Amino acid sequence: MPDDRLARQIQFVLEIDKLKSIYRRSYLLNEQRNENSAEHSWHVAMLAMILVEHVDEPVDLTRVVKMLLIHDIVEIDADDTFIYDEAAMAGKADAERKAADRIFGLLPEDQRDELIALWHEYEARQTPEARFALAVDRLMPLMHNVSTKGKAWREHGVTSRQVIKVNSRIGDASAELWDFARSRIEEAVAKGHLAE
Amino acid sequence: MPDDRLARQIQFVLEIDKLKSIYRRSYLLNEQRNENSAEHSWHVAMLAMILVEHVDEPVDLTRVVKMLLIHDIVEIDADDTFIYDEAAMAGKADAERKAADRIFGLLPEDQRDELIALWHEYEARQTPEARFALAVDRLMPLMHNVSTKGKAWREHGVTSRQVIKVNSRIGDASAELWDFARSRIEEAVAKGHLAE
Repeated sequence: MPDDRLARQIQFVLEIDKLKSIYRRSYLLNEQRNENSAEHSWHVAMLAMILVEHVDEPVDLTRVVKMLLIHDIVEIDADDTFIYDEAAMAGKADAERKAADRIFGLLPEDQRDELIALWHEYEARQTPEARFALAVDRLMPLMHNVSTKGKAWREHGVTSRQVIKVNSRIGDASAELWDFARSRIEEAVAKGHLAE
Repeated sequence: MPDDRLARQIQFVLEIDKLKSIYRRSYLLNEQRNENSAEHSWHVAMLAMILVEHVDEPVDLTRVVKMLLIHDIVEIDADDTFIYDEAAMAGKADAERKAADRIFGLLPEDQRDELIALWHEYEARQTPEARFALAVDRLMPLMHNVSTKGKAWREHGVTSRQVIKVNSRIGDASAELWDFARSRIEEAVAKGHLAE
């Protein structure tokens, strides 16, 4: 028999398989289906690895990657909230806190405490790591929208004013990445893929 | 206009979106569909984070996580090879090398060189990091099979002799994890979920 510690670790890892069945508003670039939050988490971790040189303040990349790998796990209980749905966004904090306690609570206590602290750090946006993690989590769906002629934006009636407001947080981590993102937003408007 | 470096980085990150459409033989735990290689990559990176204390030799977890995030990207060109398909496994090395050169070659040269080196290190199994990354990459589908009553094993006529041979590599990184895995294989045989 494995010790109780290993059994709890395995139980947690099996539980988070459910993140593969939480679907987001954004589409794969081939537009064949919506993406799920597990593959999205992989993609933003890759984006952070590749773009880390562009941050304005130095970051510990390991902590950024860990944050991004776990940042959406709460959606297993709380579901994905569309960032442009302001009413839903207002109610999500409480449900996500409960979800974090239940899901990370499957782990041995030291690991539970570490991951809950990391998740709260991400949500609080107060450290360079959390700001950069947020920036790539915003930039990825922006790139998906730009690359699919604004498919998810158009389906949900999102305007450029909303897109600029939500994505300006990218600038809290990197002026260069926000310049880049803003130029892509302007292009999308010019091409008629995003409503003004 | 972004500089050429940022443009190449973004092009690479968009290209690897295709990994979300590469499907594996293993199933989600809810058995509703096969899993894809992008969400699998996220899951094994999480498994490595959680189980790192069980390694026999110390590892640099950051390198392990990076290795696991990129280890399947070559499948975009070379497709997933079923580990129990010995004929297909024999021919995959060359196709995967070409794939690594093309896909990582989209990046700026320094990042291309870093990720190709990391991918070769993973494939060569000579460092503690590569052995641990391989161990979690073996353990995850084993747990998926054990948890779905051997669904993928039964569909493909896999025997316990094959499962023990393929998964014994777990013991190269961690005697404890291999003990655990072996006990789960024995249980699966006893329950009739895996042919002897």
